[in-house]
Amino acid sequence: MGLSSDDDTQMKVVNGDAGYVLEDVPHLSDYIEDLPTYPNPLRSNPAYAVVKQYFVDMDDTVAQKVVVHKDGPRGTHFRRAGPRQKVYFESDEVHACIVTCGGLCPGLNTVIREIVCGLYHMYGVTKILGIDGGYRGFYSKNTITLNPKIVNDIHKRGGTILGTSRGGHDTSKIVDSIQDRGINQVYIIGGDGTQKGAAVIYEEIRRRGLKVAVAGIPKTIDNDIPVIDKSFGFDTAVEEAQRAINAAHVEAESVENGIGVVKLMGRFSGFIAMHATLASRDVDCCLIPESPFYLEGKGGLYEYIEKRLKENGHMVIVIAEGAGQDLFTKSLQSMSQQDASGNKLLQDVGLWISHGIKDHFVKQQKMAINLKYIDPTYMIRAIPSNASDNVYCTLLAHSTLHGAMAGFTGFTVGPVNGRHAYIPFKRVTEKQNNVVITDRMWARLLSSTNQPSFLSSKDVAKAKEEEEPPTQLLDRENCNDGKTV
Amino acid sequence: MGLSSDDDTQMKVVNGDAGYVLEDVPHLSDYIEDLPTYPNPLRSNPAYAVVKQYFVDMDDTVAQKVVVHKDGPRGTHFRRAGPRQKVYFESDEVHACIVTCGGLCPGLNTVIREIVCGLYHMYGVTKILGIDGGYRGFYSKNTITLNPKIVNDIHKRGGTILGTSRGGHDTSKIVDSIQDRGINQVYIIGGDGTQKGAAVIYEEIRRRGLKVAVAGIPKTIDNDIPVIDKSFGFDTAVEEAQRAINAAHVEAESVENGIGVVKLMGRFSGFIAMHATLASRDVDCCLIPESPFYLEGKGGLYEYIEKRLKENGHMVIVIAEGAGQDLFTKSLQSMSQQDASGNKLLQDVGLWISHGIKDHFVKQQKMAINLKYIDPTYMIRAIPSNASDNVYCTLLAHSTLHGAMAGFTGFTVGPVNGRHAYIPFKRVTEKQNNVVITDRMWARLLSSTNQPSFLSSKDVAKAKEEEEPPTQLLDRENCNDGKTV
Amino acid sequence: MGLSSDDDTQMKVVNGDAGYVLEDVPHLSDYIEDLPTYPNPLRSNPAYAVVKQYFVDMDDTVAQKVVVHKDGPRGTHFRRAGPRQKVYFESDEVHACIVTCGGLCPGLNTVIREIVCGLYHMYGVTKILGIDGGYRGFYSKNTITLNPKIVNDIHKRGGTILGTSRGGHDTSKIVDSIQDRGINQVYIIGGDGTQKGAAVIYEEIRRRGLKVAVAGIPKTIDNDIPVIDKSFGFDTAVEEAQRAINAAHVEAESVENGIGVVKLMGRFSGFIAMHATLASRDVDCCLIPESPFYLEGKGGLYEYIEKRLKENGHMVIVIAEGAGQDLFTKSLQSMSQQDASGNKLLQDVGLWISHGIKDHFVKQQKMAINLKYIDPTYMIRAIPSNASDNVYCTLLAHSTLHGAMAGFTGFTVGPVNGRHAYIPFKRVTEKQNNVVITDRMWARLLSSTNQPSFLSSKDVAKAKEEEEPPTQLLDRENCNDGKTV
Amino acid sequence: MGLSSDDDTQMKVVNGDAGYVLEDVPHLSDYIEDLPTYPNPLRSNPAYAVVKQYFVDMDDTVAQKVVVHKDGPRGTHFRRAGPRQKVYFESDEVHACIVTCGGLCPGLNTVIREIVCGLYHMYGVTKILGIDGGYRGFYSKNTITLNPKIVNDIHKRGGTILGTSRGGHDTSKIVDSIQDRGINQVYIIGGDGTQKGAAVIYEEIRRRGLKVAVAGIPKTIDNDIPVIDKSFGFDTAVEEAQRAINAAHVEAESVENGIGVVKLMGRFSGFIAMHATLASRDVDCCLIPESPFYLEGKGGLYEYIEKRLKENGHMVIVIAEGAGQDLFTKSLQSMSQQDASGNKLLQDVGLWISHGIKDHFVKQQKMAINLKYIDPTYMIRAIPSNASDNVYCTLLAHSTLHGAMAGFTGFTVGPVNGRHAYIPFKRVTEKQNNVVITDRMWARLLSSTNQPSFLSSKDVAKAKEEEEPPTQLLDRENCNDGKTV
Repeated sequence: MGLSSDDDTQMKVVNGDAGYVLEDVPHLSDYIEDLPTYPNPLRSNPAYAVVKQYFVDMDDTVAQKVVVHKDGPRGTHFRRAGPRQKVYFESDEVHACIVTCGGLCPGLNTVIREIVCGLYHMYGVTKILGIDGGYRGFYSKNTITLNPKIVNDIHKRGGTILGTSRGGHDTSKIVDSIQDRGINQVYIIGGDGTQKGAAVIYEEIRRRGLKVAVAGIPKTIDNDIPVIDKSFGFDTAVEEAQRAINAAHVEAESVENGIGVVKLMGRFSGFIAMHATLASRDVDCCLIPESPFYLEGKGGLYEYIEKRLKENGHMVIVIAEGAGQDLFTKSLQSMSQQDASGNKLLQDVGLWISHGIKDHFVKQQKMAINLKYIDPTYMIRAIPSNASDNVYCTLLAHSTLHGAMAGFTGFTVGPVNGRHAYIPFKRVTEKQNNVVITDRMWARLLSSTNQPSFLSSKDVAKAKEEEEPPTQLLDRENCNDGKTV
Repeated sequence: MGLSSDDDTQMKVVNGDAGYVLEDVPHLSDYIEDLPTYPNPLRSNPAYAVVKQYFVDMDDTVAQKVVVHKDGPRGTHFRRAGPRQKVYFESDEVHACIVTCGGLCPGLNTVIREIVCGLYHMYGVTKILGIDGGYRGFYSKNTITLNPKIVNDIHKRGGTILGTSRGGHDTSKIVDSIQDRGINQVYIIGGDGTQKGAAVIYEEIRRRGLKVAVAGIPKTIDNDIPVIDKSFGFDTAVEEAQRAINAAHVEAESVENGIGVVKLMGRFSGFIAMHATLASRDVDCCLIPESPFYLEGKGGLYEYIEKRLKENGHMVIVIAEGAGQDLFTKSLQSMSQQDASGNKLLQDVGLWISHGIKDHFVKQQKMAINLKYIDPTYMIRAIPSNASDNVYCTLLAHSTLHGAMAGFTGFTVGPVNGRHAYIPFKRVTEKQNNVVITDRMWARLLSSTNQPSFLSSKDVAKAKEEEEPPTQLLDRENCNDGKTV
Repeated sequence: MGLSSDDDTQMKVVNGDAGYVLEDVPHLSDYIEDLPTYPNPLRSNPAYAVVKQYFVDMDDTVAQKVVVHKDGPRGTHFRRAGPRQKVYFESDEVHACIVTCGGLCPGLNTVIREIVCGLYHMYGVTKILGIDGGYRGFYSKNTITLNPKIVNDIHKRGGTILGTSRGGHDTSKIVDSIQDRGINQVYIIGGDGTQKGAAVIYEEIRRRGLKVAVAGIPKTIDNDIPVIDKSFGFDTAVEEAQRAINAAHVEAESVENGIGVVKLMGRFSGFIAMHATLASRDVDCCLIPESPFYLEGKGGLYEYIEKRLKENGHMVIVIAEGAGQDLFTKSLQSMSQQDASGNKLLQDVGLWISHGIKDHFVKQQKMAINLKYIDPTYMIRAIPSNASDNVYCTLLAHSTLHGAMAGFTGFTVGPVNGRHAYIPFKRVTEKQNNVVITDRMWARLLSSTNQPSFLSSKDVAKAKEEEEPPTQLLDRENCNDGKTV
Repeated sequence: MGLSSDDDTQMKVVNGDAGYVLEDVPHLSDYIEDLPTYPNPLRSNPAYAVVKQYFVDMDDTVAQKVVVHKDGPRGTHFRRAGPRQKVYFESDEVHACIVTCGGLCPGLNTVIREIVCGLYHMYGVTKILGIDGGYRGFYSKNTITLNPKIVNDIHKRGGTILGTSRGGHDTSKIVDSIQDRGINQVYIIGGDGTQKGAAVIYEEIRRRGLKVAVAGIPKTIDNDIPVIDKSFGFDTAVEEAQRAINAAHVEAESVENGIGVVKLMGRFSGFIAMHATLASRDVDCCLIPESPFYLEGKGGLYEYIEKRLKENGHMVIVIAEGAGQDLFTKSLQSMSQQDASGNKLLQDVGLWISHGIKDHFVKQQKMAINLKYIDPTYMIRAIPSNASDNVYCTLLAHSTLHGAMAGFTGFTVGPVNGRHAYIPFKRVTEKQNNVVITDRMWARLLSSTNQPSFLSSKDVAKAKEEEEPPTQLLDRENCNDGKTV
């Protein structure tokens, strides 16, 4: 057993017996000496008074590995989230701020609401600011005062009351603003890029030696954040996607050789497309970024469409935003010399593939098709979170603020096998969570849609050769959605 | 390490190093010798051909314990669900039947659909019967032929196309019918009592030495089945409950001293009420079976109502079906001598408490209240499952049929920390899963509603004394919903 | 032609050629001399500047009779609603108030919003008060300031932001309050009783000679207001009722001899029950106040239930709140001596009939039934209005305020054959609009449900004898919903 | 009084006193002599037995004019729809067929269902065919057998179970098919072009002297059919459009200078856009075909957008499919030389205007905007009809089949001022119903959105000059939706 730090400031790794590894998160006391601590005010909170084991045990950790062998190593663990007996901030000392960055996602307002209400009701914190319009709001805009009354009904609305934007990350200006305003808890809600930004902010704060806790809440409607079971808003998005698939199915069924094409979110990962397809049962083909496909020739998409229309008279195709990028890029390049504005429009993969299919059947002249294209993206992103996501967002918010109050910093939060944990920024930003197409969930999808695998026999052989040792597999599986077996 | 059998036929326990325990499920080969095996037909299924690690490793087990200490014992494990390299039935040998018992629950039709489609598409099984109207349908009714075409759209409808009933369990008649019809796979979807019945059927089949796999799929809208993370339909129910709570809130808000009372499902456990309350944020008081309360006097419900109305002008109360049983029973007894039919009607706890509240404020004459009572039970039970439950039901169905094909029997199935496992009947029927009111989730609820804990200071002291050692706590927590931290 | 006044103050009747009758509404100038007029500010409003025929012609009237014969008399007409060239109030002179009375109904908030926004944006009125909690709010509570910003999003919420109550009508206190506060436009939203109250307020104001316009907006979710085509919220209610009927159908279908009973609104008229039944197509029996029925014996309800269960295995019954009052009252009387609290509970007709049916089949011992009772009343009343009702409420609000600005008073407003008109209070309060069970709409329902008419052959003969002359029929039909052929 | 025929076969006009005009529809007896008649079987139908005035009086007509003056002419009337005492077909003689043509519209399946159930249950007709896939199905496809069991649940699904297509109208082949199959009642559901086709089929049938009743049911989601109050599916479409507008609003609100653009149906008329805008209240600009607009310069769209963003920070634009065709065409022409595929894509007016707005703000470099474009068209068209449309479709179907049974032919059906009438084909196909932008409904919209009228002062002056005499106006108004005052 021992403590190593692979990144000097970010990674704190503890090794134990039988292959036990703890990837710990930073703490304010790592770089500030003699910080005073205070008893957790929850001790005297009537709601929590009767809770026996309310406070998380110092030694509690969450195992990343659930599928095990009798003699296998115990694997990676994370620090369990939750309230601690001692906190590192007094209630009236806390000056918190919340910022939301990137695209909309159902549940943003619920997370904001619950950070505000949680800090207020559980820890007696009254100074909470909203940063307006993403990272650049730290230095270019006025802040928004937040309290339980103001946020009372916001979880019933889509979007984010704080406003959001992409980019705008200027580390020194942001940390200056934090320092100048006397903020000492920073809650950052956003995707991959935003969490990387949060890591940099944390580094700078540590460099300046400030007593400021930096906590990230991972947001991605695509569910492509590694380590954690599921990202908030994903459930709501899959549910809402059913409307578009149903409509595509009705449109396709009502005409001869009808094809309904639905584009869903997922620039790098196809989780929404895959789950929406599995939930619906009306989809005949699901195309995702992780599974390469080709259009022409034997085993290609066009051949499958023709076959399906002949058998069934109609079909529904779901395509994730990032599917077929290679084909797409090639096609745009060949076109771009002569055709500037078409180019721009075709940057929508759904329009591009719809065009491709129509062109193919026009050229081929064997079959008149009737294609309808639906892009429900903004209608999905903008709805309020459903009940399940509301509860999830509440737990996420609480876990985060318990961590900040307890002096942890430079961490992100999320459920690992159903238990909330504090996770080093690096672990959630170093790679993306992807649909593993050699895994059972994707096989299930293939089996339910009957679509081709688009893999040549050579590919299959190669895939089988690459087969990894069991423990590897298990580790990889742990990165997936905890719900997918 | 060694094999012990605590129940002679049902419990197969394997002990390993470092406190590792495997609670295994029975297998046809346990009591039938020299059963032939066959290669899994999925091997040649195009959808599954490229799947690297499609087949579950013989040694894979699922850990029940996720929150661990560095040196803690490894704890209980279950056999991982999923397809095996070898199966114990040939495709055209299989004669499966499906039965649904007990009350309605969103997702029943999806489970039926996916067993049928899974058996058909994955294993080439074509002989599948539906048993009409619950257990008694085995011997008193005709069966229903099932195939993928018949079940194609049923997941979009609520209820169960097979019909259902309570009771009707006559073991020998049922097993006679199974034997007479030549059925060799029995899929039983139902709650606690139904699973107990399934265990008895399995025992009788084993006694008769039949090659018949008996598999249970636990169904309870209340989410009160132990060991597994969550029961199907629960998510949908919590979502749909929001409508009733919203309506109660609007009604209460629009009049002076308005009280909206919503009764939700939960005869023995308050999970739906608790989650619906946490998801809504409009509830001022949530009453569940696990948390005793009292009406009159200091710290009682009436006092709280009065206080809340004075502060806020209106309030919303959510009461689970089984809350306050002691008070309820006492009140009915005192009344029953003189008042027969009122008695019957008041067996609805929601009507009972609504009456109680009205009477109290009439007698008290200090405050005129305006109470509206909503019972959305049947409107919730009867809706189709949402997208999230649809995916879950699909996995559940697949896990079950993979198990039966692989020769396992006398088992029930469900996710344990996000990984599907085969669980001995006994583990899911020996007790109920309850909301632990000394746990954080309930504290969260109390904190969000501001309702009193209804515990006297004596109770609190006692509760604290009873505090169990940390490992105990963790074990208990593992029985809860995996999603609740 | 000539002017007669049958009620001295309320009815202004103008007779014309060919049987033309105009039932006019009062005007401030009827009792105040030399009132100054002003050009309508809409003339200079950019939105209205290009409207050719924006202002209603002085002579425009709306015909109540649409189905006519070549030589028939022209019948009753009402003054057409809409803006006039001249108004009787200057913008900054207006001090308006709005009050909502009675039970909730989808659309209340939309009407409030549009009166506020209409007065503000069209007429430049800035002094608008909300009366809190119904009539009694005039004298016992503080008022609520209303402006476009405050009401901006209220149409997306159910209920009424002003609060509501029943009763509380004290004419002199209310008119004192109006006078003392300097209010000169009173908008009163409420049902039958409320409109009667509004008529009395108008009378008192006229008696005192005040320049105060009193305008009623009829509110009844039951659609039982005569003369007007349809009341607001009715469409939304019928839509929402489908959920309950669907649930009842699923519950009934899933068990043997399943009966789903749904109680819908309609104390004196069965429009919601009838339309919900016609829209759903899953209902086997619809019971409404206008159509007497009996339970026992040949041709009775129980016989029909038994027949339907035998044929179909399940059935759905929709019962309007006020159906079977005679049976109900008799049954309660016979019971009340011995059974006080049951009595109270059974005042819900849905519970009463559900009990009756259960008891009948228990006593009869021929058939075990499985009855589920659903009362969605509060879940229907409390939802926000749908798009169609939103547009309707907007027009209603505008028509009303145009009338008040133009100096009309003592009137209620509503569409007559699709054109909004000003109608004397008396015409909408003197009777109720009922489902005419000897009319085609009810025949359509009987034909779609196949339920018995519950009429003895003697009744039929009598009904036929009573047959009225054609013009009578047409007049009666005109009182019905304009949409029902 | 006298009979004139302006079109030889189609128009039958009867003139009466006081300016009464009846525009009658053809009857089989107009061209076939000595047709036998039969008593209406409804006379002995138990559901209809007690209906006093069930049968429509021979002389009943429906007035098109509702807003009248005391001395004004009585105007145009249509024959009232409904069952007649005598029918021209015996039950077992009838061989009906139903065809659906053109784009999807909520309610198609309900109309099909109710024709089938109505013919079956009311008139005992058992031979009913569905024509597959629109007009061309008459001669190129097999027919579909229809009966009450087959159509039982179809009203809960979107689309049309018969399939549909555009074009394919070959009069002689169709009439040959009708003659060859022995069909004698043809129900044709479709839009403007389809009704024109129906008129031609009727002419050919009349020319051949066949006893075949041809009845049209007007279908247009756009509500642009003249004479009738409203087309089926319109209500449902306006309701569903709210989702897209809400999403656009949330997206726009959550970013700086956010613009949400929603394209709605309406190639030639803006009713859906106008009603959806009025229902929502979140729209800042509504662009429809009837109201020309311009982009650049003072009073143009871009200027308004800039102003609105400065005031409010975000805005929502609703654009009907056919708005701005002149600008659109000009812009495409200027582009088409160099840019072929862009051209094609930009044929979507929503993409075109979104591009235009983006380009403008990029070029102008004053303001960075953030535009999100939503096209919900197929998601709206494909949903099942709501309750209100379900009831409407039922009445429409019944009115139609009563007419055919009574021997009327060459007619279309629909409500005129709330009463169903038989209308000559010509009246519904000779022009389109448009939003009258010099009428109050559009003024209401302008007032609610605050958008500019896009009319130069010269235009306004001209519009005012053109002002027509009052009676003209009233007649025109009668062509609008009966609901729009």
